[in-house]
Amino acid sequence: MYPKKINDLIEAFKLLPGIGKRTAERLSFSLIEMDKNNVDFMVKSMQEAINGIHRCNVCNNYTDDEVCPICSDSERNKEIICIVDDPKNVFLFERLNSYKGYYFVLFGLISPIDGIGPDDIGVNKLIERINGHDFKEVLIAVKPSIEGETTSLYIKKILENYGIKVTKIASGVPMGADIEYIDSLTLQKAIEDRREV
Amino acid sequence: MYPKKINDLIEAFKLLPGIGKRTAERLSFSLIEMDKNNVDFMVKSMQEAINGIHRCNVCNNYTDDEVCPICSDSERNKEIICIVDDPKNVFLFERLNSYKGYYFVLFGLISPIDGIGPDDIGVNKLIERINGHDFKEVLIAVKPSIEGETTSLYIKKILENYGIKVTKIASGVPMGADIEYIDSLTLQKAIEDRREV
Repeated sequence: MYPKKINDLIEAFKLLPGIGKRTAERLSFSLIEMDKNNVDFMVKSMQEAINGIHRCNVCNNYTDDEVCPICSDSERNKEIICIVDDPKNVFLFERLNSYKGYYFVLFGLISPIDGIGPDDIGVNKLIERINGHDFKEVLIAVKPSIEGETTSLYIKKILENYGIKVTKIASGVPMGADIEYIDSLTLQKAIEDRREV
Repeated sequence: MYPKKINDLIEAFKLLPGIGKRTAERLSFSLIEMDKNNVDFMVKSMQEAINGIHRCNVCNNYTDDEVCPICSDSERNKEIICIVDDPKNVFLFERLNSYKGYYFVLFGLISPIDGIGPDDIGVNKLIERINGHDFKEVLIAVKPSIEGETTSLYIKKILENYGIKVTKIASGVPMGADIEYIDSLTLQKAIEDRREV
């Protein structure tokens, strides 16, 4: 139907998550009309990202250096390390500008049903990271789900031997949310974890 | 906040219409994890499209040839030419598989308020296209709007001298639509243009 070059462009956009046929068509027709310099910038950015962005040797976060700026920063709080399961969440935490410790990025969460064990998500590297440092607290910030709980419990069990406090971010009713629209599991958790006012 | 290469990629995605900051971030983080071959395919497709897709010399439709396959096809109905104001709509019509004539793509619609006149949208080239051919009917398929009406009337006036019938696609209630939700302008048009059952 379309000229091959337009067809290829549509197929290319469809490789991106959440981009269906209609959106891919819309983006393709827009790109054809775009300033050539802008398309060159897009192309260059994609190439630089796919070739130049890799995981930090220390924490697994995305970086264009060997070691990311956070791991290289000796001014941060050396007593606490936060564990996330997605590099995006490091940037999310940094944006809050309140957490000043270090990070470690797992490659996902333990999920026995999917055959994903501790080795697959890089728990060994986490232990290496903790070994020989003076972390007093490991703050686990992963999704409150079965996989998240399994992973948290596993990490807690491993770190018991190191005498490190293992904490996790609170679950409960989001700020400003209408309680009537909260699912019962969350509400139950919020009641269990109630705090003195 | 992000490494420069990720920042650039986010800015690059934001150049696409309808892609805001959040979506650009999501697409960027996905791209980093994509198979390198897929990213190469995206890059190549973008380059081929921006450099290789241009307007057909005859009808202004997008093509990777000098003259598009439709204009080159001598088997089509030589008595009718359909006028659209966007190349996308040629493909839309072709998908119906019922219209078998030729096309001409205007570069937009006449809009005196925006200072867009007949010369800006390529009416001269349309007249050239019609001159010396045996078209019996010009079917105008543009948006039913003030600009669309202005453009249709202008083309009709020009083509009067050529003895060519000028038609336009019907306006009215979309098939399957609830009449109670149709705007009054459309409904009024549908009543004016009523047809015998």
